[in-house]
Amino acid sequence: MKISKPYLLFLGDAADQLAAKTAQGVKDWREEDCVGQLRMDGCNADTGLDDVTIEEARKAGAKTLVAGVANRGGIISQAWIAVLLEALEAGLDLAAGLHNRLADIPELKETADRLGRSIFDVRHPSGTYPVASGEKREGKRLLPVGTDCSCGKMYTALAMEREMQKQGMKATFRATGQTGILIAGEGVSVDAVVADFISGTVEVIAPANDPDHWDIVEGQGSLYHASYAGVSTGLLHGAQPDVLVLCHEPTRTHMRGLPHYPLPELEECMEANLKVASLTNPEVRFAGVAIDTSRLDEDKALGYLEETQKRLGLPAVDPVRTGAAAIINELA
Amino acid sequence: MKISKPYLLFLGDAADQLAAKTAQGVKDWREEDCVGQLRMDGCNADTGLDDVTIEEARKAGAKTLVAGVANRGGIISQAWIAVLLEALEAGLDLAAGLHNRLADIPELKETADRLGRSIFDVRHPSGTYPVASGEKREGKRLLPVGTDCSCGKMYTALAMEREMQKQGMKATFRATGQTGILIAGEGVSVDAVVADFISGTVEVIAPANDPDHWDIVEGQGSLYHASYAGVSTGLLHGAQPDVLVLCHEPTRTHMRGLPHYPLPELEECMEANLKVASLTNPEVRFAGVAIDTSRLDEDKALGYLEETQKRLGLPAVDPVRTGAAAIINELA
Repeated sequence: MKISKPYLLFLGDAADQLAAKTAQGVKDWREEDCVGQLRMDGCNADTGLDDVTIEEARKAGAKTLVAGVANRGGIISQAWIAVLLEALEAGLDLAAGLHNRLADIPELKETADRLGRSIFDVRHPSGTYPVASGEKREGKRLLPVGTDCSCGKMYTALAMEREMQKQGMKATFRATGQTGILIAGEGVSVDAVVADFISGTVEVIAPANDPDHWDIVEGQGSLYHASYAGVSTGLLHGAQPDVLVLCHEPTRTHMRGLPHYPLPELEECMEANLKVASLTNPEVRFAGVAIDTSRLDEDKALGYLEETQKRLGLPAVDPVRTGAAAIINELA
Repeated sequence: MKISKPYLLFLGDAADQLAAKTAQGVKDWREEDCVGQLRMDGCNADTGLDDVTIEEARKAGAKTLVAGVANRGGIISQAWIAVLLEALEAGLDLAAGLHNRLADIPELKETADRLGRSIFDVRHPSGTYPVASGEKREGKRLLPVGTDCSCGKMYTALAMEREMQKQGMKATFRATGQTGILIAGEGVSVDAVVADFISGTVEVIAPANDPDHWDIVEGQGSLYHASYAGVSTGLLHGAQPDVLVLCHEPTRTHMRGLPHYPLPELEECMEANLKVASLTNPEVRFAGVAIDTSRLDEDKALGYLEETQKRLGLPAVDPVRTGAAAIINELA
């Protein structure tokens, strides 16, 4: 599965900027792969790309319309479907990360089949994956792991990839969630595969490579999240990371969605991740810490990073505020 | 999903006794729920139950034909289908733990629908399950965990349930794999659910109960198995066990299916399981060790149990050779 680029980013009738965060992620990390955005009446989001029609997008070379937006009320409206049909007729594929599958809408499926177009519902794994072999493979791998869900693991991975490529290193982001897949154009939502195949799926999406090549694997969940730690465990085993980066959001008061669960201490969380990861890669180590300081002012943010760096003896960065270079320098 | 009992155990044309191990498990643990066995020409297995025809089974009250046998070459033959159709026509439901679904065979599906009969393909979860809440629930839970896959976890759980019930305790076996589900008549194959819902599924199948009631949850995989540890982790978190029992097969030279992975030391494996389980139940403890000594002679077996008991300071039993009572006594 490889989604053809460049993209036309479809924002639909997004209620607010947050509803279009997937489109924003694609624009932020792959602007060079986007010919523009398409917004319907009532859209309250804006990625900053030029507004274009489907016809303009086609002329600019767009290959896929990416629905990078949460659909209101979880319903794919007739107004959306009309736009998506027009995109198919114009020769574009469709890609979306919605809970509902575009391919389950008969009009879209039939039109795509008739025209020989593809529909990528990236939240739903389409292939079959093997049971993990646990066999060591060539190439290096880095995995961001979190104290919690939604604390910057994807952002950190993409920032690391960008910085490594800037420094001339061989690096590839490997997507394990829907936004990451739309950004990369490929990958698998590992939390949506059958439980027996979590690690095996990761072995497939981050395969053997040149000895000096880095796969930057998108992390998921947290070993300390009572709902999702099974996914995080399988991901750690399948990725066989040489290097981990700890991701943390310092203002959070409890685990996401679990008000009765506190966050782990950073040291405790690092120790647990090293323990699990060492099963498939005994040489695993931490190379740094990535803090999401967006909820702190500049002084507090820099203070927190300095304090964390001293406390853990590892470079502590905010990939947005300070960049990821300090961690990359650890990898040389 | 609740499979109606009593059962007619179908052994088909089982190549050898091992091919019918699911039927044997049902007979060994729920003989009172079986009216007999049905064997085809060329069957080389025997559970020890009386051979009966479908008509005799029906007259004896059988409600479900259980295909407790591996199908040769993974193909469901026409000869099998003829027997299964006859069972449906006689008023029986069908249940199987095969990789292929009986319900995917049009003749069987159509006949079952026409007659209002059910088909239970227990390897394939049929419901939808929630994300785990991690909330503490009433009742006590025991979970066998393994140094490896296939080292006696289901057998241990069933032996514990039987011994607890014998001693007048409230105890219910909760099945998480296909043979266990056929034995219990209900449960979910947790390794076959979508990864995000492993723990949530276990919260559903081992729900809140009386404060003095024990759920004996069937274990799966091992934290030390590089292919399946994600499932084992989710199971530990969802079960919220008060008590763990360590299962081990002492003659194994490497992890099952992974020749390059050694088995963990018992102490190390116990520590890792306590660490993971303590996230959702900080009071978790080990109450004993269950050793599969079937590959050792009597002297060696008893010696190994005695040595293990001394080494770990916990009762060490072989549920088959010595019974599980010594561990149950620890729970009072």
